[in-house]
Amino acid sequence: MKHVPTFIAGILAAGVIGTAAIGDGHADKATLSAVKARQSLMSLQAFNIGLLGGMAKGDVEYDAAAASAAAGNLAALATMDQSRMWPPGSDNATLGDDVTEALPAIWSADSKIGADAMALAEATAALQAAAGEGLDALRGAIGPVGKACGSCHETYRQAKN
Amino acid sequence: MKHVPTFIAGILAAGVIGTAAIGDGHADKATLSAVKARQSLMSLQAFNIGLLGGMAKGDVEYDAAAASAAAGNLAALATMDQSRMWPPGSDNATLGDDVTEALPAIWSADSKIGADAMALAEATAALQAAAGEGLDALRGAIGPVGKACGSCHETYRQAKN
Repeated sequence: MKHVPTFIAGILAAGVIGTAAIGDGHADKATLSAVKARQSLMSLQAFNIGLLGGMAKGDVEYDAAAASAAAGNLAALATMDQSRMWPPGSDNATLGDDVTEALPAIWSADSKIGADAMALAEATAALQAAAGEGLDALRGAIGPVGKACGSCHETYRQAKN
Repeated sequence: MKHVPTFIAGILAAGVIGTAAIGDGHADKATLSAVKARQSLMSLQAFNIGLLGGMAKGDVEYDAAAASAAAGNLAALATMDQSRMWPPGSDNATLGDDVTEALPAIWSADSKIGADAMALAEATAALQAAAGEGLDALRGAIGPVGKACGSCHETYRQAKN
């Protein structure tokens, strides 16, 4: 989890190094690249949690090696340094809901996104250890990962209409 | 690099566990998810190598912490298990160039994609160690990463028209 503090620091310090969106409602290229990067990261998370969720629900046959690999990917993704992926001005109020669902609250002074990121890193590390140890172990460890995903999404993601 | 052999094994064994595209030219949802996952992975690689390349060229001011973070991300991405991301039938001949640029040669018996993946993992591990040690160290270590990217793309990616 060594990158998590960097992630938090990155969010907080982003005002210094971040590339802000241009004020006329159009985002600059660097901002859109950052949005694309974090969306790519979440797409990879969804791809891996999707398999594990399918196994946990019984929709996909449990396979220890595949479960372990997917959980290992989630753990690796959770430790990635995301500081450049969340520049100020990359929220949905600035860029529009069609570009990003990231709410401005992410960048607020009392943002809990660092704690959410840490919870996800801890939950995925536990899932990585458990996923290959049988279906019951997988089922026991996947809940906290889903909870970490949901906690962040409920607070910091624009709800779908 | 513990995941690299899994990646290779995944490609070779994909005929057993992979989800093939439907024969009428339309891909099934699982195949498209796999394509999206690998494209997301490459998008994240591009986002991180982009910063490091910018520093190496002098377009972006060298920053040891940022360079180290980006190189760490590349190293983490290179060790991810990609076995589910390359199911048979997810090549451009099957899905079309608008869906994927992945050439069928990736899945051929003499495919060198496993060796390319291993070269990338080794090069990114070396870059991770060097990136924070000064601009000269970064410049010395980024070449092999670019070479590994290029080697795979030249052989296994559809050339742009």
